[in-house]
Amino acid sequence: MSLTLAPGELVPIVYKKGNLKLLDQRYLPSRILYINATTAADVVHAIKTMVVRGAPAIGICAAYGVVLSFLDRKGDIRAVMTDVALLAASRPTAVNLHHALDKLSQCLQSFNTQSLSSEEKAGLLFEAALAIHQQDLAFNQNIARHGQAVLSKHQFDKLKPVRVLTHCNTGSLATGGLGTALGIIKQGARAGLIGSIFATETRPWLQGSRLTAFELQHESLNVQLLVEGAAASLMASEQVDWLIVGADRIAANGDTANKVGTLTLALLAHFYGVKVMVAAPTTTVDMTLVKGSDIPIEYRSGAEILAAAGYENTSAVPVYNPVFDVTPAQYIDFIVTELGAVRPNDLKNSLSKTC
Amino acid sequence: MSLTLAPGELVPIVYKKGNLKLLDQRYLPSRILYINATTAADVVHAIKTMVVRGAPAIGICAAYGVVLSFLDRKGDIRAVMTDVALLAASRPTAVNLHHALDKLSQCLQSFNTQSLSSEEKAGLLFEAALAIHQQDLAFNQNIARHGQAVLSKHQFDKLKPVRVLTHCNTGSLATGGLGTALGIIKQGARAGLIGSIFATETRPWLQGSRLTAFELQHESLNVQLLVEGAAASLMASEQVDWLIVGADRIAANGDTANKVGTLTLALLAHFYGVKVMVAAPTTTVDMTLVKGSDIPIEYRSGAEILAAAGYENTSAVPVYNPVFDVTPAQYIDFIVTELGAVRPNDLKNSLSKTC
Repeated sequence: MSLTLAPGELVPIVYKKGNLKLLDQRYLPSRILYINATTAADVVHAIKTMVVRGAPAIGICAAYGVVLSFLDRKGDIRAVMTDVALLAASRPTAVNLHHALDKLSQCLQSFNTQSLSSEEKAGLLFEAALAIHQQDLAFNQNIARHGQAVLSKHQFDKLKPVRVLTHCNTGSLATGGLGTALGIIKQGARAGLIGSIFATETRPWLQGSRLTAFELQHESLNVQLLVEGAAASLMASEQVDWLIVGADRIAANGDTANKVGTLTLALLAHFYGVKVMVAAPTTTVDMTLVKGSDIPIEYRSGAEILAAAGYENTSAVPVYNPVFDVTPAQYIDFIVTELGAVRPNDLKNSLSKTC
Repeated sequence: MSLTLAPGELVPIVYKKGNLKLLDQRYLPSRILYINATTAADVVHAIKTMVVRGAPAIGICAAYGVVLSFLDRKGDIRAVMTDVALLAASRPTAVNLHHALDKLSQCLQSFNTQSLSSEEKAGLLFEAALAIHQQDLAFNQNIARHGQAVLSKHQFDKLKPVRVLTHCNTGSLATGGLGTALGIIKQGARAGLIGSIFATETRPWLQGSRLTAFELQHESLNVQLLVEGAAASLMASEQVDWLIVGADRIAANGDTANKVGTLTLALLAHFYGVKVMVAAPTTTVDMTLVKGSDIPIEYRSGAEILAAAGYENTSAVPVYNPVFDVTPAQYIDFIVTELGAVRPNDLKNSLSKTC
């Protein structure tokens, strides 16, 4: 088994024989530094300190962390299970992390009823981790395919490449490879379907200017950055056809929680006749939530905003600092998952049919 | 003659006997440093290096710069006229700067036909500079009065103070005192009419977080900051009644150019039923421009955006970086000048009647 990535694609997570090489995202874009993790404790540290970020990427790293633990602990399953608990606690709210560790734990438990050499066990754990990595990449490849099909179908003039705007980072740096919304954009640009890519800098964490612009340039794709405040001006001057963004949680009715600022962009898109596409794997859809207002929104301290302005006391001024916002389904044209593209209204039915 | 400022108001420009004391805005909010200018060259340097910013504030400083020059040059009018030319070149596009220097030059020219002592001449120049300073402050005091009257008239429930959002810095730090949009907000808050003040951080220069938040806190007024991307979320959660902003240029039809991001906020306000007020002196209205699309928009390099993201090469990524955007008149409820509040449609007629 191996991973098939596009040529030149940024590879932030590389596992090879007891070593997990991770691109340290804290130093991007000014320095490309990889750290080497050889124990579960190394992986826990990398997750806690934001060397790696993005829910799918964190899940994949944790899975490889279990493989490292098994080798480091010389097959002592009890010691490995202790490491699994430490990995699980590294980012307690990340759903993908727990999904990944559940699968690896099932694998570890199956060793009780099987007669296997230590080498065979390590091989099975590696295959389980790689399968998680591969599934994420496969989902993203399907998302990219379905997303491009929608863009192509709605392309008004086949001679005029599509112009897109994106927000935050939903690319290789956040996932097992390629990315979700950014995966569609990158593959679309490589295919000549997409002609220009605009990315918001995405305050307050600057994922757009620090990560998305870096990722696109690394993969030899052109991008233009803008501050969020310039989005209306950009759309008013008719430079954008599609807004393509990811999602952190999608309610059953299609209402979508994503990085703060998405709602602002979606409403501007609606006003200026720019179409809106949300891209995410089906694991992001939460059928237990009827509508967007059921999605809990996390608020953070204003330290990031005040630090950027040069305040020495980073609680000097109160800050309204939600991490996410919720875009109502009526302002989304298509939700694209690994299964295909649907209108938000049809999300519930299309996923029920699949189950 | 003297200036009458509100108690505790931030005073960034203080002239006293051959010394112009300027609050150095480059170090705000982390340090409150004043520099002392005693020659025209000092004032030119302060303007060029952004110690002082905001078109009205620059004009006022330049006027005092002529007074300093007269004292420094010991009444040598030819030497003073050379300094006037240097002051005029310090920020060639600032209209207020040229208006101010024109008035001081007229004063200098009048000395040819009068028999005056050097002391009397210095006194006349000081009075001319102070008059410019006072007129700006008087305009702002009238703007604040008219703006508050509009807020009060449209206050749905007199027991519920008005909640406002502003953008950029339009306060004491940008003007001869009090401010335009921020003047309305500060006076409204002091009068108990305004209950909560939200300010965007205003990327890329962070005037909101660096200057507006500092100014409000300095004057003991509460403020909450937010990134521009959070504005939709703030309005969606029904926390804002009015968007109150300044203007850099207003066309005859009421279309308004202001700091980039204003259009985004005005469209969100329109969507969420938040009312929009633009505050500026009548000198900002440009009757030679029929509509907003006639207003030239300045674009700047993306260095500010890239530096914030940690790019060492500040031209590493192309940036769409307009300084201003234009809000169409139909998304503005009131334009408030020193003469009163008008609907944008009535701007042309109301100003013609006054002339």
